[in-house]
Amino acid sequence: MTVIGLGPMGVALAEAFLAQGHPTTVWNRTPKKGDGLVAKGARRVDTISEAVSASKFVVVCLKDYDAMYAVLDPADEALSGRVLVNHSSGIPEQARNAAIWAAHKGVDYLDGAIMVPPQAVGHPDSVFLYSGPQSLFEAHEKTLLSMGGTRYLGTDPSLAVLYNTALLSLMYSSLQGFLHAAALVGSANVRVTTFAEIAIGWFLPSVVNPYLLMEAPDIDKGNYPGDRGNMVMNMTALDHIFHTSKEQGISSDLPEQLKKLAENAISAGYGDRNFMAVIELLKNPSKES
Amino acid sequence: MTVIGLGPMGVALAEAFLAQGHPTTVWNRTPKKGDGLVAKGARRVDTISEAVSASKFVVVCLKDYDAMYAVLDPADEALSGRVLVNHSSGIPEQARNAAIWAAHKGVDYLDGAIMVPPQAVGHPDSVFLYSGPQSLFEAHEKTLLSMGGTRYLGTDPSLAVLYNTALLSLMYSSLQGFLHAAALVGSANVRVTTFAEIAIGWFLPSVVNPYLLMEAPDIDKGNYPGDRGNMVMNMTALDHIFHTSKEQGISSDLPEQLKKLAENAISAGYGDRNFMAVIELLKNPSKES
Ligand SMILES: NC(=O)c1ccc[n+]([C@@H]2O[C@H](COP(=O)([O-])OP(=O)(O)OC[C@H]3O[C@@H](n4cnc5c(N)ncnc54)[C@H](OP(=O)(O)O)[C@@H]3O)[C@@H](O)[C@H]2O)c1
Ligand SMILES: NC(=O)c1ccc[n+]([C@@H]2O[C@H](COP(=O)([O-])OP(=O)(O)OC[C@H]3O[C@@H](n4cnc5c(N)ncnc54)[C@H](OP(=O)(O)O)[C@@H]3O)[C@@H](O)[C@H]2O)c1
Repeated sequence: MTVIGLGPMGVALAEAFLAQGHPTTVWNRTPKKGDGLVAKGARRVDTISEAVSASKFVVVCLKDYDAMYAVLDPADEALSGRVLVNHSSGIPEQARNAAIWAAHKGVDYLDGAIMVPPQAVGHPDSVFLYSGPQSLFEAHEKTLLSMGGTRYLGTDPSLAVLYNTALLSLMYSSLQGFLHAAALVGSANVRVTTFAEIAIGWFLPSVVNPYLLMEAPDIDKGNYPGDRGNMVMNMTALDHIFHTSKEQGISSDLPEQLKKLAENAISAGYGDRNFMAVIELLKNPSKES
Repeated sequence: MTVIGLGPMGVALAEAFLAQGHPTTVWNRTPKKGDGLVAKGARRVDTISEAVSASKFVVVCLKDYDAMYAVLDPADEALSGRVLVNHSSGIPEQARNAAIWAAHKGVDYLDGAIMVPPQAVGHPDSVFLYSGPQSLFEAHEKTLLSMGGTRYLGTDPSLAVLYNTALLSLMYSSLQGFLHAAALVGSANVRVTTFAEIAIGWFLPSVVNPYLLMEAPDIDKGNYPGDRGNMVMNMTALDHIFHTSKEQGISSDLPEQLKKLAENAISAGYGDRNFMAVIELLKNPSKES
């Protein structure tokens, strides 16, 4: 294996390969960052051409796609015939362009996204997302499993990056939602640890997440039955949340934004549907106005 | 027991009492809604005074606090000496006022909030929140358990309503976060059920929620170490999410609002802290400007 890029994540990937007994070659712009890996048996090389030539299987883990081009372009012919797995972060367009670039260079290209922090690399229950040619993924899945659990998403090379973005978006909005709720009970001196016990220990896993899983097939069908609660009722609840936030002197930005979303959904004709119908506005923002 | 208010939830509560063999008296403004309960052995009475006089333990489950006053005020003296458990929804101020009202009437008052839908009532793993005098809660916990799992929050009568509001706020923001993420991958024709499998089946329970539980004690201390990632890095990620949403033609309202939050946190001096520091702005919105 060759690992190119030895930030915290690249180091973790190289360590995982070494731990599984794979001969591993490493390269980094700042060579010093490979010291620990060399001590663990990695072979550090001076030039990017040597690094790429050393292995059929090359993993890139750099800051972004621009860094990947800056690092790999000097390797040029050495690239041809390699399998390149790119774990650098970016946006969908960059992933699609990278696949085109790779085809020009004669490189077999898989785009990847790492959904765990460096310390979780190498564990089978971590998640690494992949997109690109399915046959390529299947031919190398065993090697990919050295880094962590794999998840093949499809041939469109941008899928890994897109899923990554969606999951991060979900993460930030979950953090905000929890922190706003914690601030709300915090206004009555409830500790975050106390609230977390019921909110995360019980409410999310036992009520909210099963509800989302149950609704998912209906959302796929554009089916939002309002018989167990509808947008007009949600609007009343959101109004409650908005006013309680104000009354308790905490930020009302989040409930205000949620209220606006429900309001727009009602204006768009979803008043008698359940809350899931807001996805129609999220998918197609022009419907909002 | 007496159950006052026979909407879907009041009916479920009365059914739970009957199922456990408690003699149960019921009353509703629209008496017809008690037909099914009478068939199951409930005693339906004509006046609110009879309803209140029939039992020491009276559960109220009406649309809101105003409905509670409208219904109970005519009972007047009959109320004195009763234990009143109120499961009607409202805001913290209304719960505090209800406790004062109850004291005037000579009523022992517990404020409650039901965190599950009617079909989950009666199961021990459902959650009913209670606030008010601890001795009162303890004296009647066995009876309260007939309705579902109990959770005593403290003497401040508004705590049940406040937790309820916070959990609902968390729910709506979780739904929005999931739906936005689903819209993002949906722009590449990924099905919601496919995305839910990884987002809810793995990412939230294995990555996001453990992270929140781990950070909670530090949030309580106002300690937001930035060594594993800081607000400036989060800002870059949120910018990514914002632009990818635009690029894919879906709504960018949620990432825009999250970006603004991170921006405000950086302006307020939290650039080198982790994302949890935004709770300082949420708790104290005046810090934002
Ligand atoms: N760390 C995590 O928790 C995590 C989790 C999931 C995904 N990721 C992704 O994994 C990738 C690597 O992340 P990381 O945490 O290891 O650190 P990073 O700071 O994102 O990337 C550091 C690496 O990029 C190199 N680099 C940056 N600009 C360069 C340039 N212009 N030319 C050549 N090399 C350049 C650095 O080389 P020097 O050492 O010479 O500066 C180093 O090898 C990123 O895309 C990141 O988003 C990270
Ligand atoms: N359903 C749920 O999933 C759920 C979950 C958690 C909490 N809750 C809370 O439980 C409470 C009851 O909910 P619900 O679902 O049973 O239905 P609801 O529609 O919220 O309340 C219906 C009950 O309120 C009565 N009512 C409304 N206005 C009244 C008035 N001015 N005077 C006298 N009675 C009045 C109705 O009497 P009539 O039958 O005569 O109209 C009926 O008994 C609410 O506070 C709700 O927020 C409900």
